[in-house]
Amino acid sequence: MRIKLTIAYDGTNYAGWQVQKNALGVEAVLNRALSKLTKEEITVIGASRTDSGVHAAAQVAVFDTESTIPPERFSLAINQKLPADIVVLHSEEVAADWHPRYQNNIYKTYRYRILNTKEKDPLRRLYVAHVSFPLDLEKMQEASGYILGTHDFTGFSNIKSEVLSSVRTITNLRLEQDGDEIVLTITGDGFLYNMVRMIAGVLIRVGRGFYGPEKVKEILESQERTKDRFTAPACGLTLLDIQYEAKQ
Amino acid sequence: MRIKLTIAYDGTNYAGWQVQKNALGVEAVLNRALSKLTKEEITVIGASRTDSGVHAAAQVAVFDTESTIPPERFSLAINQKLPADIVVLHSEEVAADWHPRYQNNIYKTYRYRILNTKEKDPLRRLYVAHVSFPLDLEKMQEASGYILGTHDFTGFSNIKSEVLSSVRTITNLRLEQDGDEIVLTITGDGFLYNMVRMIAGVLIRVGRGFYGPEKVKEILESQERTKDRFTAPACGLTLLDIQYEAKQ
Repeated sequence: MRIKLTIAYDGTNYAGWQVQKNALGVEAVLNRALSKLTKEEITVIGASRTDSGVHAAAQVAVFDTESTIPPERFSLAINQKLPADIVVLHSEEVAADWHPRYQNNIYKTYRYRILNTKEKDPLRRLYVAHVSFPLDLEKMQEASGYILGTHDFTGFSNIKSEVLSSVRTITNLRLEQDGDEIVLTITGDGFLYNMVRMIAGVLIRVGRGFYGPEKVKEILESQERTKDRFTAPACGLTLLDIQYEAKQ
Repeated sequence: MRIKLTIAYDGTNYAGWQVQKNALGVEAVLNRALSKLTKEEITVIGASRTDSGVHAAAQVAVFDTESTIPPERFSLAINQKLPADIVVLHSEEVAADWHPRYQNNIYKTYRYRILNTKEKDPLRRLYVAHVSFPLDLEKMQEASGYILGTHDFTGFSNIKSEVLSSVRTITNLRLEQDGDEIVLTITGDGFLYNMVRMIAGVLIRVGRGFYGPEKVKEILESQERTKDRFTAPACGLTLLDIQYEAKQ
């Protein structure tokens, strides 16, 4: 029986999703809790390898089990064994061959929160990037317009990836003022390593006036990795949603 | 020279505002940082003794110093020496006899956040009280109406206080849906120990249908402390603002 979990977590205290040698990954905490619960050796397969410090509102993972716990009851049972910063929101049975990463038409949505106030806010410090200099939202919005559509995003990646193609399609992008925050919400069929944080970083520089909005177009057209681009801090980033178009 | 500070803090890791014998108070952290900065022995006087785990968006405190640091520069200087969960938002000079607690017409505003969703949210767990049962907002609003005005709030206190009178005036109260949260914002000329959390606790019980809205009226009229009343968790509470009407 293959169970699909939808999981929210606060990434602050984790070295990212993936199991790490010397640091705790969210995946490892789930494996341990599920193994304890089922008395089997459980290894979850996650949809998205969120980075150290990045949060998730709806990560997806699957695991196989012979447990007699009803699929929809797993969320309740597993939450008893998880720390407060990891919560399983939903559990259901899926087809035995359903894989969270290998599906047609997977779309992921990320959110990046920028707190644009003179002083930091201790109550949001773990979930936003703080920028004390006034940001020009209109210029940032103009810049973000270049991101929409299908592009080679090599310019917005900072390590050479194993992935063969750096072409991704961004289907939706919004950059909005929300109170004292500027919030980027971006949906695409995939993201290179650190891509959203690099986009956020360049948009912040546009907002401060270091770059003109057309800088984003130049970076895309360059198709070149450069080291001097600002990667916005991990804590501002949340994996918001993963949409699977194909039936499960 | 007397300096007035406006301070925000995440109360999660503190035993409240006040200096404690065996646990760390926010006050103690400020005293230490200010003493280091000025090379004097500084003791701040706070406006509001927030409880363990309670947050503040704008606590007020004063201290006396002979330092030559310009008053408005203190915030910047002190923030270098504070942990990330305490931020001084503003500093200014006030009259040498200005006291943050003994002023005519002080009004304090607290906010209590109730997350009303089936599952907990790890990203807000430190700042909301989670209630998984559906809450009836209209009934809660009806109940909260009884709180407005001048009452003896003995029924909404859970320890015998040193304070002589339990009469307080609530000048403003709003209970509103904000996305998946129900948010109580309450302003008054003073609050008894645990009063806002007890009000929130009783409102939650009204929302669940344990009590009718008129229960709030009964508790007020009883003027009796009882032990069985639900005190909502500290983490949901934030000291939002302190308004001083009299000129400083």
